[in-house]
Amino acid sequence: MARPFHLNTPLLESVSMTQRVGTPVFLKMENSQPSGSFKIRGIGHLCQQLATDSKGVVCSSGGNAGMAAAYVARKMCVPATIVVPSSTPQLVVQRLRDQGATVNITGKVWDDANAEALRLAETEGLTYVPPFDHPLLWQGHSSVVSEVAASLEEKPGAVLLSVGGGGLLCGVIQGLKDVGWTDVPVIAMETVGADCFNAAVKAGRLVTLDDITSEAKCLGAKTVCRKAF
Amino acid sequence: MARPFHLNTPLLESVSMTQRVGTPVFLKMENSQPSGSFKIRGIGHLCQQLATDSKGVVCSSGGNAGMAAAYVARKMCVPATIVVPSSTPQLVVQRLRDQGATVNITGKVWDDANAEALRLAETEGLTYVPPFDHPLLWQGHSSVVSEVAASLEEKPGAVLLSVGGGGLLCGVIQGLKDVGWTDVPVIAMETVGADCFNAAVKAGRLVTLDDITSEAKCLGAKTVCRKAF
Repeated sequence: MARPFHLNTPLLESVSMTQRVGTPVFLKMENSQPSGSFKIRGIGHLCQQLATDSKGVVCSSGGNAGMAAAYVARKMCVPATIVVPSSTPQLVVQRLRDQGATVNITGKVWDDANAEALRLAETEGLTYVPPFDHPLLWQGHSSVVSEVAASLEEKPGAVLLSVGGGGLLCGVIQGLKDVGWTDVPVIAMETVGADCFNAAVKAGRLVTLDDITSEAKCLGAKTVCRKAF
Repeated sequence: MARPFHLNTPLLESVSMTQRVGTPVFLKMENSQPSGSFKIRGIGHLCQQLATDSKGVVCSSGGNAGMAAAYVARKMCVPATIVVPSSTPQLVVQRLRDQGATVNITGKVWDDANAEALRLAETEGLTYVPPFDHPLLWQGHSSVVSEVAASLEEKPGAVLLSVGGGGLLCGVIQGLKDVGWTDVPVIAMETVGADCFNAAVKAGRLVTLDDITSEAKCLGAKTVCRKAF
């Protein structure tokens, strides 16, 4: 198997959180991944499976998924097109270009950009990189749990994570199964205004939010992936 | 051998520095060590060799060495006394206490604090942890180079590092020898006002600076260690 693009990131005990909570709290420093987030785990794995002979990858994300796709494509010497909506900050566009990606600005919101990405995949024969909804992404993300298991001396009392579209959640649950930690509770956190998973659980079915009103717009999804639900 | 206290930290390519310099620039993210700096490598190694049966360790540093000594001692279940001068910010004192260390505030400058640390080692039978001048520290620090060698695909064109008392410099040079990279130039950087290595090289002998006039007072040393010179 090809060498992965992600790193085994530090697992650090937070002294201040440990003091506040009264039990050791560890942080998995995924911000120190080469692309700046955990997304490189799943997207790296997916691209190594699907894009080795690709004439290019296309991803619709002005957030962490887009950065991961741009980084991975550069390392694989495959062209990357990242489609982002016009609301994307110039700094983000520049960072994507710094990774060698072609940035395509289409539409006002993510859904418009994603439609364009799917269209390009179809018409140009590019490999579509989904931001969070694909089994290969979840398999790649699951590596975060095996690293924690190799580093911690005992089984954790719980795992806390955030939910955007649910890709990390699916990956962590798979990872917990892989290491035999099926009895470890997972506490999934969402920000108010980007709580598509919470809305789905409350409604008992997948729900598409009217809008993302959280400050962290590019990190939210309007519908959680079915697998997470 | 006991499991080390330091982590294999991420080696990240800096896109902005690479663009500016025109050749790939990698950063070894030692800030993500559990103690916040590379000092944990050498101090962890030294304490594992010298302090396993110690009734306590004592270190004179309100900087990274003190934090590393406090962290390592806590993990080894050995009491730590960190002696700092009265100029040490309250935040630093609190962070050392958060690591479970006893903080002893003595004198106006580091030399006073160090004299007290040496006195305590003598009178109380504590294990003295030197901040930068000891072969076990250099041996511990050398692990940073073996990690880089395992991670980089080719030999680097140069290694850039900072000099405080010279401990990292000695460790890196040992590490370069260990991996067979003896022809890789090392560029040692100092800040104006804490340039004890520069002063020694210019004078052709060890020099003790009158004062540290750099902003980063707790990271400087007035005399570089003889081995580095």
